[in-house]
Amino acid sequence: MDYRDQNSNRGSDHNRDRGRDQYKRRDGGQDQPHVEPLHSIKLRAGRRNYFFDVRPTKSEQDFYVVMTESKKMDDKITRSKIFLYKEDFIKFAEALNESTGIVLEKLKALGIEITPRKEEEHED
Amino acid sequence: MDYRDQNSNRGSDHNRDRGRDQYKRRDGGQDQPHVEPLHSIKLRAGRRNYFFDVRPTKSEQDFYVVMTESKKMDDKITRSKIFLYKEDFIKFAEALNESTGIVLEKLKALGIEITPRKEEEHED
Repeated sequence: MDYRDQNSNRGSDHNRDRGRDQYKRRDGGQDQPHVEPLHSIKLRAGRRNYFFDVRPTKSEQDFYVVMTESKKMDDKITRSKIFLYKEDFIKFAEALNESTGIVLEKLKALGIEITPRKEEEHED
Repeated sequence: MDYRDQNSNRGSDHNRDRGRDQYKRRDGGQDQPHVEPLHSIKLRAGRRNYFFDVRPTKSEQDFYVVMTESKKMDDKITRSKIFLYKEDFIKFAEALNESTGIVLEKLKALGIEITPRKEEEHED
């Protein structure tokens, strides 16, 4: 039995589209939840979780990173994904570093100390 | 005139929700497009753009980073946002670095060279 058939029988448009287009192109922004990621990291952050999945493309000659923010709001969970490909790794990391650096400078100027979140602060 | 009234008169559910809840809490995940970000970076990446905005909270005693992926697919533009707060900067950057590092190792093992994207490769 093809597990993709199972997926395509589910109700939402989201899953129907995934079943139809999942291997259409590398850049399609379709996540492939039935394919185990090569590597996965979960960060707990209050009412948010962040996931970092490394996934192969169909050809298995390329790999990409999917960052997911999973957020609990009023008992609903929403997910937001950003796809990142090798050509953009450096610029993306630089832009993130520049942006967080500006926050840290501003907080330092305000005399606010930054304490990284402890694991037990997760609310789920 | 209150600019929030202008927002709340727009048609989409998205904007209505924003008008209603934008200042409800720091962690609400509501972007505030009428408030200029403190700092903004745009990365062009093929049919994607990435944006990094540094924004103040309502109190102006804290700041956060919004990463946005704007993606052009079949002439439709979709946007996906990840919100990042100071408590999670270090772990987020570490997880991103670990994930992209695994991609780079895999590609190295396959003998594939990585060429960062040139500015003119943007399709828009």
